[in-house]
Amino acid sequence: MTSNIRLLIDCPDHRGVVAAASNFIALHNGNIVDADQHVSDPPGSRFFMRMEIERAGFGLGPDEFDAAFAPLARQHGMAWEVHHGDRPRRVAILVSKYAHCLLDLLWRWESGELDTEIPLVISNHPDLAGKVQAHGIAYHHLPVAKGAKAEQEAQVVELLRQHAVDVVVLARYMQILSAEMLDAIGRPVINIHHSFLPAFVGASPYHQAYSRGVKIIGATAHYVTAELDAGPIIHQDVARISHRDGIEDMIRIGREVERRVLAQAVRWHLEDRVLEDGVRTVVFS
Amino acid sequence: MTSNIRLLIDCPDHRGVVAAASNFIALHNGNIVDADQHVSDPPGSRFFMRMEIERAGFGLGPDEFDAAFAPLARQHGMAWEVHHGDRPRRVAILVSKYAHCLLDLLWRWESGELDTEIPLVISNHPDLAGKVQAHGIAYHHLPVAKGAKAEQEAQVVELLRQHAVDVVVLARYMQILSAEMLDAIGRPVINIHHSFLPAFVGASPYHQAYSRGVKIIGATAHYVTAELDAGPIIHQDVARISHRDGIEDMIRIGREVERRVLAQAVRWHLEDRVLEDGVRTVVFS
Amino acid sequence: MTSNIRLLIDCPDHRGVVAAASNFIALHNGNIVDADQHVSDPPGSRFFMRMEIERAGFGLGPDEFDAAFAPLARQHGMAWEVHHGDRPRRVAILVSKYAHCLLDLLWRWESGELDTEIPLVISNHPDLAGKVQAHGIAYHHLPVAKGAKAEQEAQVVELLRQHAVDVVVLARYMQILSAEMLDAIGRPVINIHHSFLPAFVGASPYHQAYSRGVKIIGATAHYVTAELDAGPIIHQDVARISHRDGIEDMIRIGREVERRVLAQAVRWHLEDRVLEDGVRTVVFS
Amino acid sequence: MTSNIRLLIDCPDHRGVVAAASNFIALHNGNIVDADQHVSDPPGSRFFMRMEIERAGFGLGPDEFDAAFAPLARQHGMAWEVHHGDRPRRVAILVSKYAHCLLDLLWRWESGELDTEIPLVISNHPDLAGKVQAHGIAYHHLPVAKGAKAEQEAQVVELLRQHAVDVVVLARYMQILSAEMLDAIGRPVINIHHSFLPAFVGASPYHQAYSRGVKIIGATAHYVTAELDAGPIIHQDVARISHRDGIEDMIRIGREVERRVLAQAVRWHLEDRVLEDGVRTVVFS
Repeated sequence: MTSNIRLLIDCPDHRGVVAAASNFIALHNGNIVDADQHVSDPPGSRFFMRMEIERAGFGLGPDEFDAAFAPLARQHGMAWEVHHGDRPRRVAILVSKYAHCLLDLLWRWESGELDTEIPLVISNHPDLAGKVQAHGIAYHHLPVAKGAKAEQEAQVVELLRQHAVDVVVLARYMQILSAEMLDAIGRPVINIHHSFLPAFVGASPYHQAYSRGVKIIGATAHYVTAELDAGPIIHQDVARISHRDGIEDMIRIGREVERRVLAQAVRWHLEDRVLEDGVRTVVFS
Repeated sequence: MTSNIRLLIDCPDHRGVVAAASNFIALHNGNIVDADQHVSDPPGSRFFMRMEIERAGFGLGPDEFDAAFAPLARQHGMAWEVHHGDRPRRVAILVSKYAHCLLDLLWRWESGELDTEIPLVISNHPDLAGKVQAHGIAYHHLPVAKGAKAEQEAQVVELLRQHAVDVVVLARYMQILSAEMLDAIGRPVINIHHSFLPAFVGASPYHQAYSRGVKIIGATAHYVTAELDAGPIIHQDVARISHRDGIEDMIRIGREVERRVLAQAVRWHLEDRVLEDGVRTVVFS
Repeated sequence: MTSNIRLLIDCPDHRGVVAAASNFIALHNGNIVDADQHVSDPPGSRFFMRMEIERAGFGLGPDEFDAAFAPLARQHGMAWEVHHGDRPRRVAILVSKYAHCLLDLLWRWESGELDTEIPLVISNHPDLAGKVQAHGIAYHHLPVAKGAKAEQEAQVVELLRQHAVDVVVLARYMQILSAEMLDAIGRPVINIHHSFLPAFVGASPYHQAYSRGVKIIGATAHYVTAELDAGPIIHQDVARISHRDGIEDMIRIGREVERRVLAQAVRWHLEDRVLEDGVRTVVFS
Repeated sequence: MTSNIRLLIDCPDHRGVVAAASNFIALHNGNIVDADQHVSDPPGSRFFMRMEIERAGFGLGPDEFDAAFAPLARQHGMAWEVHHGDRPRRVAILVSKYAHCLLDLLWRWESGELDTEIPLVISNHPDLAGKVQAHGIAYHHLPVAKGAKAEQEAQVVELLRQHAVDVVVLARYMQILSAEMLDAIGRPVINIHHSFLPAFVGASPYHQAYSRGVKIIGATAHYVTAELDAGPIIHQDVARISHRDGIEDMIRIGREVERRVLAQAVRWHLEDRVLEDGVRTVVFS
């Protein structure tokens, strides 16, 4: 997998930012192998940038970069992140009973499509333990007892902490995470919702879609926020259906879209291609 | 254009309907060149069928068909329609100021893609008169005066009646038709809404879509009912957008989708391929 | 899975065929729950039909159908097939080293998307044995020794015969089957080719596509004939690529298309939706 | 329309190019509102860059830019182009008898989607004169007399020269341009071919597609080179077809794809988003 350094910048739009950033890299003998930028619409335009710099030959080590870059960032009012590519991000997958998104992520991980470590899978059901363990990944069954949701959430948070998880993926987890839990996680949480949001928020979107008689169904991968299905959208895709497709068909066709959309969103996130711009996202794909 | 006879049937699902209908056609020496059927989901499954019969050699004339078919229809509880293909359907197009859907329909009509007559275009604005008249079609400018919407609607209805219009197409008309007007028209009215319904009902869907940060936009062609943007959907399609696309880009990209979706829906309607099943549609495409 | 009876008909186009077939079903108290038909273009138009008949209540058993239908078929010059839905079709999957198409088929099979039995997987490499056996399916490793291709083919044919295989799926098998082998198999063989045929026939289509600088890549599922990549096409799909996508990216993106296209083609085949019309296919999807 | 300055760069890949270019812009007080870059695959990796710079506030006038930038370009071995956005590009459209691509381009031009002037349309047939003149554009009918193709080509070239045309668009021109003519034009020529190249090169691609029984058809916009249908591809798109679609349907469905693909390619070209990389293109869309 790539071991390039990735620098993400987000600041008020103004002259000279590109030059400042690329100068900085050139000064330290860096080779910019990929760069993308975006200026959001006025008023209040912000500047977003993503740079990929070859590690070979770059003059700043992981432990030196921050001190060297901070003054420039301060001068330009930059929020910024750097990923040195020296260790893969650690992903925890949360699932319920549906296997398709989970298995697709595991298959892509095994195929080398996802540059990540997957230390654990957590589920409120025991069903998928065997399939997960077959990939050599720990499976934690944490059921949600009636009236004890907060306890289960605390257990999940503790596991994520213990395993130093960088990002949480809800691969059809079927549970709403409380605002408290999201706070406690303090890391990006990516969810797959089985509709083209904002259509069909909440439960049973395929049933809602069937009742409305739509001709396309979709899936949406988004960052989870406290408001249900309202977080920043990373990726969406759709599939065409017809009057011949009953709810079972929609579920079958939708599985295909869900797993594709979630995998793409996770891949982009792991490659540091997704920047948040309020409820909108900038995706340097 | 095709001059086949088209028979549409809709009845409670039960054994022998296909045989009864195809027997009837065979009895009168008809050649079924196309047939499609659908049984809707239980409970209360209904049977839908569309047959295309060659006119050449068919033993029943337009004036004889109804009497011959009625007893069979009664026996099987069929709602039915027959179109003898002896005259094209007459379409009225209602527009406001946006030209793209209108021009696309006119271009397809001139190209022979739409088997129809277009006796008139009606608009609440004068802007598109020249373009319409250049196609040899009458343009009626009926402005909506403040507080006089009912009067304008009555004028529109009267024009549709005078021109014996079979179907009304709202090609970005930007006016909500009152329930009274729909009643008075008494014919199918097809609208193009510039979102993938049910997302972004009502005004300014592209602005809504921009604010929500979606990654796909769409358009929906549907039959108009008294409830805004809630009628049976005939066709939908989408286009991918990115963070680079501002509202102007979305409008530009959306125009492409709108005109394609509306033209397809109108074509299917004119070919008698769309049957209503409550708020759902059966589209024998 | 469905246990409907499926009747496939193919004959010279003429009046009364639909009536004859549907009458026959009605006579024996059959309920036609799905039917589709097609008349191919002149000259020499042929009529194709697929009917699904509910087993419940149908008056002809599997052992009685042929004798009852044969006279009608003879009268109308029909080639025909009937599948009584009383046993699932048996599929053998042939693979080489690439896992994606194979695993996708196995996953869909486990999910109940494919109404089939998979008695065995055959490969010229040992690599995928573990993954296949984990699904409880026999894995036969039959390497192709230099100069001994005919012997290996004979072994494969013998295995297919022993397991009473109905259809063979080449899930990126990477070997060209000889005309003799195809004859000996005597059953449909479905292949996935990783290009939108007829572009990029033969080896390394992604490399060919890269060199030509195309902006879309695709995959094609087709029945195998003695001529390489020239058999009747069942299904095709594509994915958009850009200048950013090198060959490795094309391979990754293509995997997604390949597995989707192959799975869809196999599903349609197993549901008896694919009829051959020379090198063209009729797909009643 | 946009009046930003656009700078295109193409050079051997090496460290410091981005910094050099963005420094240069910053030095002259330029605001980079959009930038995109690409490094082609090894061996012989080349660096491609496109920058959009706000005219307001930029310190170099159109007459000063070249002298100021040349030394930097020489130092880094850059091939480069700058478009100051001070005048729209001039497009000539060549057509035969088919109207759809032509009318679509004219409609988009009138809608403000294409930042261009269209001084003339040239055709070997008189049919479309009225439609073109209705848009206030000169129509030149230059028939190709038997054995006098070279003379007609010379007339076309002379007209292009007189009208100071920057780019030629073949909107289904149905004539092969000789290598001599291409040389004499000395400007980019964009063609729309009605297949997904490299499938179905040459005449009657829809007939070829029908015979092969493909399930998708497509269109390809490419720069014209002396070798037929082999020039660098700018854009491609496809549409799904089925066994129900005869050649007439394919032509109708294809028209939709052709006009969309050509319009997009022309738009990208006019926005200086397309850079050639041998037979491949870099499209900064």
